[in-house]
Amino acid sequence: MTAKSQHQWTADAREVLRVDEGFRLIDVDPRSTPGYGGDKVDGHNDLASGVAQLDELQERLYAASRSDATDASVLLVLQAMDTAGKGGIIRHVVGSVDPQGVALAAFKRPTEEELAHDFLWRIEKRVPEPGLIGVFDRSHYEDVLIGRVRELAPADEIERRYGAIVDFERRLAESGTRIVKVMLNISADEQKSRLAERLDRPDKYWKYNPGDLDERAAWPDYMAAYQTVFERTSTEHAPWYVVPADRKWYARLAVQALLLETLEDIDPQWPAATFDVEAEKARLARSW
Amino acid sequence: MTAKSQHQWTADAREVLRVDEGFRLIDVDPRSTPGYGGDKVDGHNDLASGVAQLDELQERLYAASRSDATDASVLLVLQAMDTAGKGGIIRHVVGSVDPQGVALAAFKRPTEEELAHDFLWRIEKRVPEPGLIGVFDRSHYEDVLIGRVRELAPADEIERRYGAIVDFERRLAESGTRIVKVMLNISADEQKSRLAERLDRPDKYWKYNPGDLDERAAWPDYMAAYQTVFERTSTEHAPWYVVPADRKWYARLAVQALLLETLEDIDPQWPAATFDVEAEKARLARSW
Repeated sequence: MTAKSQHQWTADAREVLRVDEGFRLIDVDPRSTPGYGGDKVDGHNDLASGVAQLDELQERLYAASRSDATDASVLLVLQAMDTAGKGGIIRHVVGSVDPQGVALAAFKRPTEEELAHDFLWRIEKRVPEPGLIGVFDRSHYEDVLIGRVRELAPADEIERRYGAIVDFERRLAESGTRIVKVMLNISADEQKSRLAERLDRPDKYWKYNPGDLDERAAWPDYMAAYQTVFERTSTEHAPWYVVPADRKWYARLAVQALLLETLEDIDPQWPAATFDVEAEKARLARSW
Repeated sequence: MTAKSQHQWTADAREVLRVDEGFRLIDVDPRSTPGYGGDKVDGHNDLASGVAQLDELQERLYAASRSDATDASVLLVLQAMDTAGKGGIIRHVVGSVDPQGVALAAFKRPTEEELAHDFLWRIEKRVPEPGLIGVFDRSHYEDVLIGRVRELAPADEIERRYGAIVDFERRLAESGTRIVKVMLNISADEQKSRLAERLDRPDKYWKYNPGDLDERAAWPDYMAAYQTVFERTSTEHAPWYVVPADRKWYARLAVQALLLETLEDIDPQWPAATFDVEAEKARLARSW
């Protein structure tokens, strides 16, 4: 919490947002701002202060990884219903980090080739290297969310996947990846108004797809599928965080805080020189 | 030039920086600021104003590509001697664009697998999709720069590559990619002081490699190799731009201007709705 000590956070974001035993999605108010005592203006200010911290921590992580000082990486997994604000998180939180330190992977409807493999095949290929912040815009969780709601796979296959995910994520964690799984939790009402905005603005038409309303119609089924995901896959090594997302400013600030706390935990240090500094200074001075 | 009309540019960046017939690298002053009438403070202000323009133009390009309204993409190729500021361009110019609209590819020393293929094999795989700004941090030009200076391939193979590059880039251009090739041109003196800074600051040690001085020793050979690159590969469809880079603020501003002018040329428009807007509004209103 050091980095946020002068700010309006009253608790550790990871503490207040983590899915623990007995968590029920239905109990979360999507307009709430857990752990944060400030308002929208404070939120914007605190987001801006976090930018430089996040950028430096990421650069340190990258630097440390170049000299084998760490095998750590961070993987942010973003899942949400349409319009919940994944794009805004990527633009305003992830986008504040040096692009050389970020590996972004957007998982869309699987291709024929991807479908011919196990559901984790395409995921495995996009796992971040040491030193990077990987971001999954949708993920392997689609295979137990839309996969379950739309019955894209048999029930026993969906069942198998929860265990496969837990094993996969444990292996990632053991190899140094800090996994931060975020569900952006908007209300159905807020989604309605955001979809209405897309239909009102010609510069937003391209973001609208008539299929969005079909998914919206299955809202309760999706919420049930998320609840099962949390129960089966929120683990010590890869916990879920449910971030109330009706207020965009809070959601962005909270995801930034989750990343900051994770990086502060890693506490990456500038690596020592792997060469003789004085000798190199002399060589440089002699060069033409 | 519309977008920059209130600013301190006195000419189109593409006009003043393009490598044309008779260009000689040795004639360029790395501390100069061609086409720009302002100083460092103006430069920072103009860079900041360009951020929102670049971001909107990129989003329009992406939107247009989603509805098949365009097959256009932009490919920024960055080449330079060490410390010339590629990283700063990526952080401060490219980094101001939504990460979802950028495809960054850093080409390092080729792997065994890459070396077993033609030199363009690994490049082809990273060509940007329509709607994106692709950025090559180093590129296929390494194969005729370090490739030539360090004699990593026979002379006739190096010779063959110039033609292969021209053909490759023509094919890219014909399929909609606007290629912007930038050489960041620093002086040997400026490099010396930037290397000295890396040796003075423990948070910069990780950026220093003793091999950098070996490359520095071959400076005149590299300049000759660049001169040949310009003569053989600066074409109508894929011109080179030589950007004086001793002043970081100018180099960043100039590359931003090159991207802005390229996107303004494409002039991407928000695509029309591909659905019946009123019918969708009615469906949304009826949804729960």
